Amino acid sequence: MLELLSEHACFGGFQRFYRHTSAEIGLTMRFSVFVPPQAQHKAVPALFYLAGLTCTEETFMIKAGAQRIAAREGVMLIAPDTSPRGAGIAGEAESWDFGVGAGFYVDAKAAPWATHYRMYSYVLELRALIVAQFAVDAAKVGIFGHSMGGHGALVLALRNPDLFKSVSAFAPICAPSAVPWGQKAFAHYLGEDRSDWLAYDASALMSTLTAPFPDGILIDQGLGDKFLAEQLMPEAFEAACRTAGQPLTLRRHEGYDHGYYFISSFIESHIQYHLQKLV
Amino acid sequence: MLELLSEHACFGGFQRFYRHTSAEIGLTMRFSVFVPPQAQHKAVPALFYLAGLTCTEETFMIKAGAQRIAAREGVMLIAPDTSPRGAGIAGEAESWDFGVGAGFYVDAKAAPWATHYRMYSYVLELRALIVAQFAVDAAKVGIFGHSMGGHGALVLALRNPDLFKSVSAFAPICAPSAVPWGQKAFAHYLGEDRSDWLAYDASALMSTLTAPFPDGILIDQGLGDKFLAEQLMPEAFEAACRTAGQPLTLRRHEGYDHGYYFISSFIESHIQYHLQKLV
Repeated sequence: MLELLSEHACFGGFQRFYRHTSAEIGLTMRFSVFVPPQAQHKAVPALFYLAGLTCTEETFMIKAGAQRIAAREGVMLIAPDTSPRGAGIAGEAESWDFGVGAGFYVDAKAAPWATHYRMYSYVLELRALIVAQFAVDAAKVGIFGHSMGGHGALVLALRNPDLFKSVSAFAPICAPSAVPWGQKAFAHYLGEDRSDWLAYDASALMSTLTAPFPDGILIDQGLGDKFLAEQLMPEAFEAACRTAGQPLTLRRHEGYDHGYYFISSFIESHIQYHLQKLV
Repeated sequence: MLELLSEHACFGGFQRFYRHTSAEIGLTMRFSVFVPPQAQHKAVPALFYLAGLTCTEETFMIKAGAQRIAAREGVMLIAPDTSPRGAGIAGEAESWDFGVGAGFYVDAKAAPWATHYRMYSYVLELRALIVAQFAVDAAKVGIFGHSMGGHGALVLALRNPDLFKSVSAFAPICAPSAVPWGQKAFAHYLGEDRSDWLAYDASALMSTLTAPFPDGILIDQGLGDKFLAEQLMPEAFEAACRTAGQPLTLRRHEGYDHGYYFISSFIESHIQYHLQKLV
């Protein structure tokens, strides 16, 4: 059961916020959808956007300026929340980089997280729900995201290239197993056996594959991003792509930082990139 | 003394946030500036944007998606805060529609507000500061705003057509003397003598003028705006413009509400409208 929480006319289409009970999460979840005007008449391509640490289903829709482009190009945009809310786990809201707002798009294996923190499978559940209930062309679904959500987008796409036909990322955490944010989250969610981490590490995954996206992957990275050196490691993903024969467009932008002023500056080229692939 | 608080690369230009001590307010004030790439080489037109109730100098820059258009068109954007902060007046932060975040762009006459709540003169002070210290063509400065800020933009422009050569508004409070938001604010800030209110009421002001903007004024109003009937009264401004011989383009948009999804949908045409006038 989808509950429409609010609807806003926007660029001739609709910005909508929904609530539903997720089978994977076992709790109520919120997500947002921008329905472009073209979807009133036909099934349109869709892009799932996964947000970063501390964000919600609202962040991208407020800050990225994406609806202008999506309305022009006729693509639906879907943004889930970044974690379960209300799981009631002691301490889950005490860190900004772990727990609430920081689900890391993994299915947790370790107690007490394993029951509800299943954001990897939740994104797949949401994809199925959107394809079933909205005017979306199921053969034209891509995924992108930012930072933690860029990590999520790369992992979801590499493991499900049949479901997500195109992938891009803004300043993604490219090698979470090797950086503090990812190590903290994975140790808690997945446990200390690092072999369990590899399925959620885009650079590790890529090293086991052969060009899963032969048409390419797009990453934008600001060189003024204060998290670049310690947390993001695009060079690790770049090396893994080279080994895998995976075409990668990794654009490094002088002066741009980690925030939405950076994302909004390049959102148009990402949406266009996806639409070129989703044909 | 201008203090640069933060700077973000954005669409080839810079989104900047500043702090300074305002002579008019007598306190520290914050404002934001989007510097388009063209301003590195020449003086550019500038648009002042006045935000609505509860907003800050950040709201417009985060939510309106204006930088994409401003960067393309080569126009600087400036957004002040919506009230003094830290005046220390008892109760000033207890209402969302009066006091902090709700300065209403008036120079208060009544105690205890008269000392610091001088947002009308502050906008003029900020205009002078921007023209003096940024690469702005002083002959090409316009003003626009939203809701309370649409009221502010209309009033500032009608009283200073030599300083603001173009004006537009999104869902402005067109007749504050006649609606609850305006009556509450004006009674406190200006006192009970209603003749003092007229200088801050766009519809009343217009009825005393003869076509102050012969090239026109642009207003966009959503018909799904829950504040339209009780608080905004565009029909009063429309009637005053008719009497004054003032050309007015008042566009009523089916379904659009009072928020930034509405503003972002029409921001491009507002910026273009101003630039057509600022020649």
